Amino acid sequence: MTEEIRDLVIAGSGVAGLSAAVYAARADLDPLVLEGDEPGGQLTLTTDVENYLGFPDGVGGMELIQRGKEQAEQFGTQFQRGSIESADLNGQPLDLSLSTGETLRTRALIVATGASARWVGANGEDELMGYGLSTCATCDGAFHRGDDVLVIGGGDSAMEEALFLTKFADSVTVVHRRDELRASEIMADRACDNGDIEFAWNTELVSINGSQEEGVAGATLVSHPDGHPAEKYEAGEDVDIEEVNVGGVFYAIGHEPNTDFLRDTPVALDDDGYVQTSTAGNAWATTATAADGVFAAGDVIDREYQQAVTAAGIGSMAALDAEEWLESVAAASAENPESVAAEADD
Amino acid sequence: MTEEIRDLVIAGSGVAGLSAAVYAARADLDPLVLEGDEPGGQLTLTTDVENYLGFPDGVGGMELIQRGKEQAEQFGTQFQRGSIESADLNGQPLDLSLSTGETLRTRALIVATGASARWVGANGEDELMGYGLSTCATCDGAFHRGDDVLVIGGGDSAMEEALFLTKFADSVTVVHRRDELRASEIMADRACDNGDIEFAWNTELVSINGSQEEGVAGATLVSHPDGHPAEKYEAGEDVDIEEVNVGGVFYAIGHEPNTDFLRDTPVALDDDGYVQTSTAGNAWATTATAADGVFAAGDVIDREYQQAVTAAGIGSMAALDAEEWLESVAAASAENPESVAAEADD
Repeated sequence: MTEEIRDLVIAGSGVAGLSAAVYAARADLDPLVLEGDEPGGQLTLTTDVENYLGFPDGVGGMELIQRGKEQAEQFGTQFQRGSIESADLNGQPLDLSLSTGETLRTRALIVATGASARWVGANGEDELMGYGLSTCATCDGAFHRGDDVLVIGGGDSAMEEALFLTKFADSVTVVHRRDELRASEIMADRACDNGDIEFAWNTELVSINGSQEEGVAGATLVSHPDGHPAEKYEAGEDVDIEEVNVGGVFYAIGHEPNTDFLRDTPVALDDDGYVQTSTAGNAWATTATAADGVFAAGDVIDREYQQAVTAAGIGSMAALDAEEWLESVAAASAENPESVAAEADD
Repeated sequence: MTEEIRDLVIAGSGVAGLSAAVYAARADLDPLVLEGDEPGGQLTLTTDVENYLGFPDGVGGMELIQRGKEQAEQFGTQFQRGSIESADLNGQPLDLSLSTGETLRTRALIVATGASARWVGANGEDELMGYGLSTCATCDGAFHRGDDVLVIGGGDSAMEEALFLTKFADSVTVVHRRDELRASEIMADRACDNGDIEFAWNTELVSINGSQEEGVAGATLVSHPDGHPAEKYEAGEDVDIEEVNVGGVFYAIGHEPNTDFLRDTPVALDDDGYVQTSTAGNAWATTATAADGVFAAGDVIDREYQQAVTAAGIGSMAALDAEEWLESVAAASAENPESVAAEADD
C-alpha cells in the first residue's frame, strides 16, 4: 500500500500560511493548506487593517484573508479542513496525523499555525465561552446591542476591541490590572479620546456569572491601588471587590503559539512554546527549524512584532526556504540514485 | 542657532521605507521619508506583482508603490527629495548630509535604501546607458518597438523583463553565461514556453556598439560550451565571437545594496555591502544595526529573499524597533534629567 508523498504541506491558513501558499503554488510545489481550528487565523478577528501596505483606505481583516485565499487558489493551492494532532518529524517523509483522523506524508512542512487568544482563568469562563464571553469583538460584538460589556486587557487589541464594541454596546469598560496601558500611543489616545469607553484601572476579573441559557449576567472584579489585584486577592490580601451587571465579556490579553503538536519533535521551541529558527552565516533571518524539511512562519515564530504584513513577509520567506530545500534534496537524490531506490523499497 | 531634531528619518521610498512610514506615522513619530535617487525603489521597475498577498488579480509595481505612498501620507508622513551623502552616526543626534546640500538631525534613522541594478562591465556601457541600454524594461521597453533586443541575465527578473519586452520588440534573446537558468521554475517555464524568446546559452556580452546619437546599434557576444565565456575570452582562451545587430540591451543581473554612505559609520556591513543586523536573545530577527538608533529594512539587509512582501514586513519591524528604541531613550532621559540638560547645552 503506497500513500502519496506530497512536496509541501502548510499548516495554518492565516496571513503567513496564505502568503507561503501563494509563493509555493507559483513555484509548482502543489501545496496543501491545512486550514486549522481557526481558518484565516487571528486577522479574521480584526475589523479594519490600516497598516498593511497597499491599502490606503484600510482593508477588513476578513476581506484581506479572503483576497489572500483567492490569490493562493489562483495558482493551484489546495485547502483542507483540519489541523495537525501529532507529527513524526524525525526523518523523510514527514508523517502528519490530523484532527480529522487522516494521515498525510510530505517532504516539507511549513508551520504557520499562529497563536491563539489567551484566557484569563476567571471562574465560569469554561462554561460561558461562546455564551456572552468571547475572544473576538468583531465576531460577537453585534450580539451585544444595548448591553454593558467589559474588555479585559490593556494592549492594542484591547483598545481595538473596545472601540469596535462602542458601535453596539451601551457601555464599554476596559478592565486593566495596571494603571497604565500597554497599547501604542495612537491606539491608547483613540480609546481614551473616544468618550464612550470607561477604564477600570488596577482591576482584574475573577469571576463571570451567568449560564449557557441566559448568557453572561454579571462579573466579579477586584481592584487594588498598587495594581495586579487578582494575585493579592488569591493571597488573601485586602482588595476591593465589586459585582457588575454586564451582558458581555471580551478577552484581549494576548496569545499563545499553537505548537503543542511539536512538543515531542526535533523542532526547538522556546519556554513559551514559540518555534525557534536559527540564522546561519550571513542571513539576517531564516524560517528553518531544527527539524529537516520543517519551516515556520508568522506569529508562531514571531513573539515580537505579530503584524499582518510581517507574517505575510515571513510566509514568503518560508516558501522560498522550503523550495530551496526541496530542490537541494532532489538534486542530492539525482546524484545518488541508490539512496532513492532504497527509500522506494521501504 | 538651533536646528530641529527629528524623531525619525526614513532613507528610501521603496516598499520597505513606505511600510516603515505607515507604522511610524501611525505611532505619531512624524517620520520624514527621503525619497532617494530612485523614488519608489526597485518595485517601480516591475510590471505585475502577482505574489504580494492581498491582490488576487495582481497589482502593478508602480501602483502598489503609489498606494503605499498614499497610505503613508494618510497618517502624516512627509516626503522629501534627496538621498544621504554622508552621515555621522556616532552619537545623538544623528547627523545626515543630503545630496541636496541640506543637513538633517534625527534621533532615529531607518535605512531602507534598497539595492540598485548591477552593470555587466561591457565596453560602451557607460556611454550607452540610457541610450538604448537600460536596467529597466518596464521603463524603456516601449522605446524598442520593432527592435531586436538582448536581455542579459538568467534569474527571475531577467525572465520577467524578457517576457515584458516581447510586447514591443521584434525579437528578444536572453543571454546567459551558463546553460541553465537561475530563475524559479514558474518564471523559467513561462519564458521558455512563450515562444517569442530565444536563449543564447553559455554566452556573455563583452561590448555594446553605437552612439548617443543613433543609440545601440549592435553588440558583441562571446560563447563557450563550458559557460562563463567572458573570463575565458579575457584570459585569451578560444571562444566563439559573434556580432549581433540589436537596437536595445537590457541588464538584469542583480543588484547591489545602496550603502556607500554607511562605509565610515559604526553600522556593520558585510563583504558585499549589505547591512548586518544582529538578533539578540529569543528574537527570530531584528532590524537593529550596530549603530545606536539606526535600523535597517528591506533589500539593504536582505540578500536572500528580496521580495516586495518581505520588504514590507521588515519595514514594519524597523518602525516598531525604532519606536521602542525612541521610547526607551525618552524614558531614560526622564529618569535622568541632568543628562538631558547637558545635551541641551551642546
